[in-house]
Amino acid sequence: MGKKYVYFFRTGAAEGNKNMKDLLGGKGANLAEMAGIGLPVPPGFTVSTEVCNLFSKAGGKLPEDIHKSIRANLKKLEKISGQKFGDEANPLLVSVRSGAKFSMPGMMDTILNLGLTDKTLQGLVAKSGNKRFALDCYRRLIHMFGDVVLDVSKKKFEEILRAKKDEYKIGKDSDISEKVLEEILIDYKKLVKAETGRDFPQDVHKQLDTAVSAVFKSWNNPRAITYRREYHIPENLGTAVNVQLMVFGNFGDRSGTGVGFTRNPATGEKEVYGEYLLNAQGEDVVAGIRTPSPLLHLKDEMPKVFKELKTTTDRLEKHYGDVQDFEFTIQEEKLYMLQTRNGKRTGQAAVKIAVDLVEEGLIKKEEALLKVEPDVLNQLLHPVFNLEEKQKRAVLATGLAASPGAAAGQVLFTANEAVAWKAEGKKVILVREETSPDDIHGMSAAQGILTATGGMTSHAAVVGRQMGKPAVVGCGAVKVNEEQKYFHIGKQKIAEGEWISIDGGTGEVFLGEIKTQPSEIIQVVRGEKKAKDSKIYRYFSKLLSWADQVRKLKVRANSDTPADARTAFAFGAQGIGLARTEHMFFGPDRLPIVKDMILSETEEDRRKFLDKLLPFQKKDFYEFFKEMHGNPVTIRTIDPPLHEFLPNREDLMVELATLKASGSSDKAKIEELEKLLERVKALSEFNPMLGHRGCRLGISYPEITEMQAKAIFEAACEIVKEGDKVFPEIMVPLVGNVTELANQKEIIVRVAKEVMAKHKVKLDFLVGTMIEIPRAALTADEVAQEAEFFSFGTNDLTQATYGVSRDDGGKFLNYYLEKGIWKDDPFETIDQDGVGQLMKMAVEKGRKTKPNLTTAATRGRSSSATRSG
Amino acid sequence: MGKKYVYFFRTGAAEGNKNMKDLLGGKGANLAEMAGIGLPVPPGFTVSTEVCNLFSKAGGKLPEDIHKSIRANLKKLEKISGQKFGDEANPLLVSVRSGAKFSMPGMMDTILNLGLTDKTLQGLVAKSGNKRFALDCYRRLIHMFGDVVLDVSKKKFEEILRAKKDEYKIGKDSDISEKVLEEILIDYKKLVKAETGRDFPQDVHKQLDTAVSAVFKSWNNPRAITYRREYHIPENLGTAVNVQLMVFGNFGDRSGTGVGFTRNPATGEKEVYGEYLLNAQGEDVVAGIRTPSPLLHLKDEMPKVFKELKTTTDRLEKHYGDVQDFEFTIQEEKLYMLQTRNGKRTGQAAVKIAVDLVEEGLIKKEEALLKVEPDVLNQLLHPVFNLEEKQKRAVLATGLAASPGAAAGQVLFTANEAVAWKAEGKKVILVREETSPDDIHGMSAAQGILTATGGMTSHAAVVGRQMGKPAVVGCGAVKVNEEQKYFHIGKQKIAEGEWISIDGGTGEVFLGEIKTQPSEIIQVVRGEKKAKDSKIYRYFSKLLSWADQVRKLKVRANSDTPADARTAFAFGAQGIGLARTEHMFFGPDRLPIVKDMILSETEEDRRKFLDKLLPFQKKDFYEFFKEMHGNPVTIRTIDPPLHEFLPNREDLMVELATLKASGSSDKAKIEELEKLLERVKALSEFNPMLGHRGCRLGISYPEITEMQAKAIFEAACEIVKEGDKVFPEIMVPLVGNVTELANQKEIIVRVAKEVMAKHKVKLDFLVGTMIEIPRAALTADEVAQEAEFFSFGTNDLTQATYGVSRDDGGKFLNYYLEKGIWKDDPFETIDQDGVGQLMKMAVEKGRKTKPNLTTAATRGRSSSATRSG
Repeated sequence: MGKKYVYFFRTGAAEGNKNMKDLLGGKGANLAEMAGIGLPVPPGFTVSTEVCNLFSKAGGKLPEDIHKSIRANLKKLEKISGQKFGDEANPLLVSVRSGAKFSMPGMMDTILNLGLTDKTLQGLVAKSGNKRFALDCYRRLIHMFGDVVLDVSKKKFEEILRAKKDEYKIGKDSDISEKVLEEILIDYKKLVKAETGRDFPQDVHKQLDTAVSAVFKSWNNPRAITYRREYHIPENLGTAVNVQLMVFGNFGDRSGTGVGFTRNPATGEKEVYGEYLLNAQGEDVVAGIRTPSPLLHLKDEMPKVFKELKTTTDRLEKHYGDVQDFEFTIQEEKLYMLQTRNGKRTGQAAVKIAVDLVEEGLIKKEEALLKVEPDVLNQLLHPVFNLEEKQKRAVLATGLAASPGAAAGQVLFTANEAVAWKAEGKKVILVREETSPDDIHGMSAAQGILTATGGMTSHAAVVGRQMGKPAVVGCGAVKVNEEQKYFHIGKQKIAEGEWISIDGGTGEVFLGEIKTQPSEIIQVVRGEKKAKDSKIYRYFSKLLSWADQVRKLKVRANSDTPADARTAFAFGAQGIGLARTEHMFFGPDRLPIVKDMILSETEEDRRKFLDKLLPFQKKDFYEFFKEMHGNPVTIRTIDPPLHEFLPNREDLMVELATLKASGSSDKAKIEELEKLLERVKALSEFNPMLGHRGCRLGISYPEITEMQAKAIFEAACEIVKEGDKVFPEIMVPLVGNVTELANQKEIIVRVAKEVMAKHKVKLDFLVGTMIEIPRAALTADEVAQEAEFFSFGTNDLTQATYGVSRDDGGKFLNYYLEKGIWKDDPFETIDQDGVGQLMKMAVEKGRKTKPNLTTAATRGRSSSATRSG
Repeated sequence: MGKKYVYFFRTGAAEGNKNMKDLLGGKGANLAEMAGIGLPVPPGFTVSTEVCNLFSKAGGKLPEDIHKSIRANLKKLEKISGQKFGDEANPLLVSVRSGAKFSMPGMMDTILNLGLTDKTLQGLVAKSGNKRFALDCYRRLIHMFGDVVLDVSKKKFEEILRAKKDEYKIGKDSDISEKVLEEILIDYKKLVKAETGRDFPQDVHKQLDTAVSAVFKSWNNPRAITYRREYHIPENLGTAVNVQLMVFGNFGDRSGTGVGFTRNPATGEKEVYGEYLLNAQGEDVVAGIRTPSPLLHLKDEMPKVFKELKTTTDRLEKHYGDVQDFEFTIQEEKLYMLQTRNGKRTGQAAVKIAVDLVEEGLIKKEEALLKVEPDVLNQLLHPVFNLEEKQKRAVLATGLAASPGAAAGQVLFTANEAVAWKAEGKKVILVREETSPDDIHGMSAAQGILTATGGMTSHAAVVGRQMGKPAVVGCGAVKVNEEQKYFHIGKQKIAEGEWISIDGGTGEVFLGEIKTQPSEIIQVVRGEKKAKDSKIYRYFSKLLSWADQVRKLKVRANSDTPADARTAFAFGAQGIGLARTEHMFFGPDRLPIVKDMILSETEEDRRKFLDKLLPFQKKDFYEFFKEMHGNPVTIRTIDPPLHEFLPNREDLMVELATLKASGSSDKAKIEELEKLLERVKALSEFNPMLGHRGCRLGISYPEITEMQAKAIFEAACEIVKEGDKVFPEIMVPLVGNVTELANQKEIIVRVAKEVMAKHKVKLDFLVGTMIEIPRAALTADEVAQEAEFFSFGTNDLTQATYGVSRDDGGKFLNYYLEKGIWKDDPFETIDQDGVGQLMKMAVEKGRKTKPNLTTAATRGRSSSATRSG
């Protein structure tokens, strides 16, 4: 037989365990684990993820020896259950579910009740003594199997169902009678025949084989690819397939199915949290079609089951050392666990839960830190609505507060439009009846999401929380008319393009745009709220204090304004790693001077305007230094090409052409524009990213570097005189050759000496460089002869190493990610093979010259037209 | 004392030799060599180049121990000559000349007759018995010393001289009487006093020290820096200073001075070649102020001296194994050699001389190859005038044929304007009374040079030959009026901007623009002229056949047209290394189809237009293959961004704005333009060099690669069917990740198989890539898994490694070279430290994966708007 590809599990015994996610997928590994520790899990087996790759390589076919393994495991299942697959009297039914290493909600497909045929149906009817149930199972099988395996549009099944319900005036699915179900079955089978040219398969082994194949195939459906791209899941990971004995939540009113969390995933509170539906099967709950009951109600409806569920899930949380997101089915008041996994949570909940678990003694501090993704902390810093503004507005409707955060935007109804509007720089709220995996790109583009149906575990809610995107779901008052592009709440009609605001923390929906304001943590940090009044701040700062205990890196802030510096310092930044001086040039009181400076034709004139800029820069630096209280502040000398400070060349050309063609007599204006255009043309570049910028400017116009150095050291001296500490680090950008750094360093050190002599002050300072040109990394041993520190500018370094501009790369980026040409967007995730190799080389070479060289990595965002900086 | 900084030489004994150019400079090393082998050289000593650097480091001062060494060597010189430096009765006079490792004609400064003061003048008068001579020496000293050391404008000295000559109606300098010389001396000394506030130095040691310092200082004058930049001479090389006993060519009519070559530097013929002036000193000959006599005349005027000169220089040529460019002085019929060096020559001469020297048994073939710079061979391929056209024109004037080649351009009179006009894309002929080192940048920018005065060794002639720039010099008929911007020849007045044509091979000047035609070698290669009728072709092909015997690299051509391919094959190219397919897209019959293809909105539409392009591309490739007769042809798939094939975005915007503002009623036109503009905007990029181009296009639009592959293989199959050989190599550009190459290779190989199957033909072919993205070099081990060859695209690789675009870099390039930030323009000379490191890495990593991987380097030019390709 050779390699093992299929793993069996049953309560009390399992061939796998929770550490085998690579092989069994998350669902399979956890099913094995739960079975292994004796929890009530329906028996079954998992076909490993390796088979997914074998399946793809074999061109979409299952290898013969794997067929054999599946049959062998099926035999075991028959033995345990005392049933027989395909048996007309005592049929064994199974579920077939996908399960990759990483949870991909809604991405992969599930088939329930597999093993039912026209003949085995009779056996199920007889055995269960519940004909309606059996018919319902068969209906669901044909529907799901038809959709997933046979590629018959699920809408067509839904149409048949709705037509019958309309015909017989039936409200709920559970009220459909046996007779009507039989009619539906006939129509379903006719549909399958009409669409596929064949009858619904009556061979149960063929059902199973094609279902398993369909799951493997679905690994490569576009939704799955999009999801993996979004969450950086490798393409070659593959999915496993779980084949499991059916238990039936749709057996009647003493049966049901549900999902839950061991703690509230929105707030982190330790409380019963979840939903269930009686007489329902699997997808009914998460699909958001019926609105389920809160899990706490189960305590009254089935006290014994509720108690068992509570004990079981508490045990799971302890066993896994983390909040569990579980699924269960109740058949005739017997509990079955169908899935458990670490629960996704909001940022706020993640922080609270991590701290609580430590304090409850369940995990160690180091484990707690690893449980909170860095992005999650980011969520907590996101803006919320300005309370005053919000209180003035009437609440239009309230839905479920599915994903916290405040968002305002223009209403749109389709994912594609959301992407398009966002590309135009617009803010968008995506409003949908309910979202599905097809909407992910639109959700990602939107500021927030509003849905009419679905609960706290619906697609919109889960994905919204994961993206850190504000979401209000299940807002029943919202009636969406997608075709006519409007929705209404009561008599209020809101059309495409109108502004609404949603509060994902409260579930409120408002008309119009409400201004947002800093999050609670930001308010505490800025001293606008007291720490003791903010629970989340206390959790947040406790977790970060644990991080401080174990981290080895120092952390500095990127900051272009003194206000940002103040916030950074309050957050514990140990200095500023990048202060971009040119951002100070864009101030309305400065830009005209900067323009005059650039348009100067002689050094003398330039110096005149630079002298005017000096006090502004000095003040900026003074404030920066003050805010950082003696911590190092790394100031980068001017970086962007000078034309960025001038009007756009094309705009000028069009303005001039228009003026001339319209026969304007304003000759002075025309002359002025012509002169300006001439200068703008002289400065314009084919590839500004590769042009006259960075230290190339400071070398061509040493007077600019002189002014900046003077401003820095004048400010620093003033602070020393006031009795405070200061530690400036001057960073020369875009160095490709040590000679460039030497040139700029000479100026900086000379000015420093002059200013210190003038003020009779002795200052410590460093001069270093940004490693952002491949040549600087390649010759880092030489560069380190002059550099007192290296800071990696990974955006520019990536651009040059790839030969791709961040702004233009968008033209092919998506295609590249889709095709797997790039595994990740290199501007989002550092490319270790290429860029990382250069960084490693730079550190090694630099340290060969200067063993104690400080190195840092910078990843900033910029909106300049070069464009990325 | 420690290190030796000063080296003495006298006939029969020298501390240095010809191999010590690094230390003694070219002039010093060769003076020592000549002295060492017993030739008549005035004794003297050389202050080494190391002192030049010490001088700079000491802030422009001579270290004390070097002062001491100079005094000690001066003592030796006094002893040998029996004279005393500064002695009033028997004064020692010396010359002070610079001399760097590489000859830099006219760049550095010379002072003669140093040691003359008011008092020693009397000694010289008495000793020489020639008062006029002594006064002339003193006049020259004050003039040269004043200019070079004291920074008094030489024009002011010249004005005094001219005024006196006018006053006394004197024609030639040699006719100035003693009395007038005395008056001139008074005026010269007054000028020095007035300009510097001090008297002309009467302390001879001060004269010497400041003169030596001035030579060292002149190493860093702007002319010297420009020259070094132009010829890639390192800044830290330094110049030596030669202090040598004066011998006097201006002693009277039995004295003189001259320069010559051991062979004709224009044609390579072995003949007496040179010029001399009687009763003249040093600079008089090369300055081009007086027109000297041909050297052959010396045979009649001084037969003994001529014979000695011939013997001496023949010995020198044999000793050095190369043509010598020598300087000599005759004092009272006694010959002194003042300098020898390998002679600069035209391309034609270089080839002939190298071959002749081998055939005369003076050097070996390998040495001959190293004597001919590759650029020199290039010169021989430069165009000449179309004979028919030329014969129709009347010759306006004839000057000296100083530097061969045909040139036509618009007349300009200053170097700066020549540079400016060239920048606007204009062709320029620089017309000057005479050129000086200040004109070098203008000469470089001009198509050719025409001067009114000067001989074959004048500045214009020497530099013109060196640059391979056509030059006609000493064209006495030309009267230049620089101020009024015209010149006239007889009654013909030619103003700035008018066209003239010059033939540097014949010395002819024509009015108007004469079309040029291929050089003789090109004509032979193209079969338009018979090899036996072309002497230069025979020399050229003999030299290249020797190169073929020793070279290890294979050489292929860059070629974008079948005609180029034919020429390349005739020259012996062993294949085509780079054929850029997109250049074929620009043909007038193709561009409209290409445009339609780009403007297509669906793949289906694109394929429709690609199908139309296919026959064109197929024909191109068919012809390429045919021309290369089975040698490999490397075809690069489409490279430039698509917007390069569309109209310019700005032009469209202006056209549209003008149309609208002028109230045009042509709505269809406006609509059409708007639509086009929209598409152009969608395709336009901030940094096209880093944008959607190279293989990124072929990946986004696989149908383009498919069409190109189909064209290649269809053409190749056809050739095989015709019984000929063919070997296509397909090169995928701009690969940064092996996945990109794999993607394109899959398409190419698939199409190849389809086409081969269709034609039932088996073809050998390779698929490789251009290494032009740093990441490709960094991950070359991975790239080599798919690549069957690497070709280095060093332009793009340099751009990315430096983060500098070739087109925008011009904004700071000159400044960088001037300041020594870059030693060389990295787009002219490969940067070994950075780009070279990446190339080495790529070869090593590539060969680790594929030990026999073929690698090549490509350096092409392109005019595309990205812009460099």
